[in-house]
Amino acid sequence: MHVLITGAAGMVGRKLTARLVADGSLAGKSLDRLTLVDIVQPDRPAGFTGQVETVATDMSAEGEAEKMIAQRPDVIFHLAAIVSGEAEANFEKGYRINLDGTRLLLEAIRKMGDYKPNFVFTSSIAVFGAPFPDAIADEFHLTPMTSYGTQKAVCELLLADYTRRGILDGIGIRLPTICVRPGKPNLAASGFFSGIIREPLAGQEANLPVADDVMHWHASPRSAVGFLIHGAELDRKLLGSRINLAMPGVACTVAEQIAALTRIAGAKVAARIVRKPDETIKKIVANWPRRFDPRRALALGFKAEANFDEIIRIHIDDELGGTFVK
Amino acid sequence: MHVLITGAAGMVGRKLTARLVADGSLAGKSLDRLTLVDIVQPDRPAGFTGQVETVATDMSAEGEAEKMIAQRPDVIFHLAAIVSGEAEANFEKGYRINLDGTRLLLEAIRKMGDYKPNFVFTSSIAVFGAPFPDAIADEFHLTPMTSYGTQKAVCELLLADYTRRGILDGIGIRLPTICVRPGKPNLAASGFFSGIIREPLAGQEANLPVADDVMHWHASPRSAVGFLIHGAELDRKLLGSRINLAMPGVACTVAEQIAALTRIAGAKVAARIVRKPDETIKKIVANWPRRFDPRRALALGFKAEANFDEIIRIHIDDELGGTFVK
Repeated sequence: MHVLITGAAGMVGRKLTARLVADGSLAGKSLDRLTLVDIVQPDRPAGFTGQVETVATDMSAEGEAEKMIAQRPDVIFHLAAIVSGEAEANFEKGYRINLDGTRLLLEAIRKMGDYKPNFVFTSSIAVFGAPFPDAIADEFHLTPMTSYGTQKAVCELLLADYTRRGILDGIGIRLPTICVRPGKPNLAASGFFSGIIREPLAGQEANLPVADDVMHWHASPRSAVGFLIHGAELDRKLLGSRINLAMPGVACTVAEQIAALTRIAGAKVAARIVRKPDETIKKIVANWPRRFDPRRALALGFKAEANFDEIIRIHIDDELGGTFVK
Repeated sequence: MHVLITGAAGMVGRKLTARLVADGSLAGKSLDRLTLVDIVQPDRPAGFTGQVETVATDMSAEGEAEKMIAQRPDVIFHLAAIVSGEAEANFEKGYRINLDGTRLLLEAIRKMGDYKPNFVFTSSIAVFGAPFPDAIADEFHLTPMTSYGTQKAVCELLLADYTRRGILDGIGIRLPTICVRPGKPNLAASGFFSGIIREPLAGQEANLPVADDVMHWHASPRSAVGFLIHGAELDRKLLGSRINLAMPGVACTVAEQIAALTRIAGAKVAARIVRKPDETIKKIVANWPRRFDPRRALALGFKAEANFDEIIRIHIDDELGGTFVK
């Protein structure tokens, strides 16, 4: 089994790589080859005895997609993208990386002719735009309100058409906002949802730019990786022609996030959250999905956390060695 | 007022041109310039005293989009596309004309910088894919089951993002299946819906490839032109951010079409319909929308026919000089 991961140096890419290496297999087949691609050179995974290639490249440059798939990976996890904030700030770069980069990869596969990989695409709940019903059903339309969401929605459509045409076996995984993201904040406007948990647990203050009653849809990095692996392993006959799926998650308000943090880490930790309203972020977040009713994904066996307490505990276990700054 | 029409040599393009020339104005402004573009040279409209440019070009060729908009048309009706059957038969041509052609035009507008045209895009109900509810609501998701539908759905998303960004004032008009199409059949799999009315009224036999209980969503060519003009004239503040709209139409079964033809033209004319089942067309049509609940379009003042009898009468009036072969 040869697996290609684009965006392998990113947070989800690194965790996916580590999980695949730990499992040693995918879809019941032994993992013997990994190709890890990103704009910066991905790290070589520790403890993997198979063949590894790490490639630093701009996927949107001519001829790069062809090189990436020349060794015919069985499964492609296509994670490479620039995030919402950057895609909004830089129109041309967003379309070049997020749309053209994906399309070049799909086209390279098509032009191989006799090659039909399992293609797992990371989409996002940013494909949805307000106004929303109380819970977003599987048949709700996609009206993105960012260029990032537009690019993801376009790639979903392309993936579905290439799949219908028999060019590849695609599945699009609409990730919830991943929380708690480890490490430094990125350019995503959603960053504070992680920041208000991550920084207080690390003994630092974190700004909260929105009101406490803002509700949003979350899943842990561990769940995100689980979705991608489950997507790769899923019997595609069960999936049918609607290959793009909203993932399960935890709907909770900022107040509920803070209450969970207080329960788990105490009031002193939670007091490190500083309310600092930001009108720009408030406006962006007002157009974001709050809650989903992801019946298809649940029926197909995709699993997220049951509540936000679990999400915090996973962060403490996976990132902080089971402890935090009291 | 300078109006650019792409796909101006096509059936809807010619009727739109004729209507604009007959009206002499658009959105309350005198029409003094027309730029008509197609892959073949469009006819010069009769009776127009303003400036007319007719251009034969492949819009997907480099630099062509820039030339088309160099004179800064106030309103762009973007109709140019290859039809569903051809886009399905020729993957590369479909994506090149229907997706890249549109994107090049949007990009040419963006790169002008200080130019913000009113952009009316002809989309299609082919953006929807089965299974469907009894009536498709405005918030139903887009899951096209053809490459043509995929290309239209992608362009809708791009148009919405370019509009949101303030690059242009876009509106996407999802046309019902236009019936009765005059002239020769084109490569669209929906052609028989027109054929079973048009040919019998012209004294010729017409094949019916599907069962009598097949229901579909229709509007006349006159309505299609009306939708586009109303779209161009619509106060975009009323439209909001969801700029792509399913149009009103007439839901009726083939049996109801035939009954209407019998009422209007007599049993002898209707007897010219020959049942000749075609499994390929049956399968394609089985995935098509049957009925819509286009509340937003109706509330915004878009109008179609009230029933299929009207659709037949419009064909007889507009195409046959008020008469037919008994």
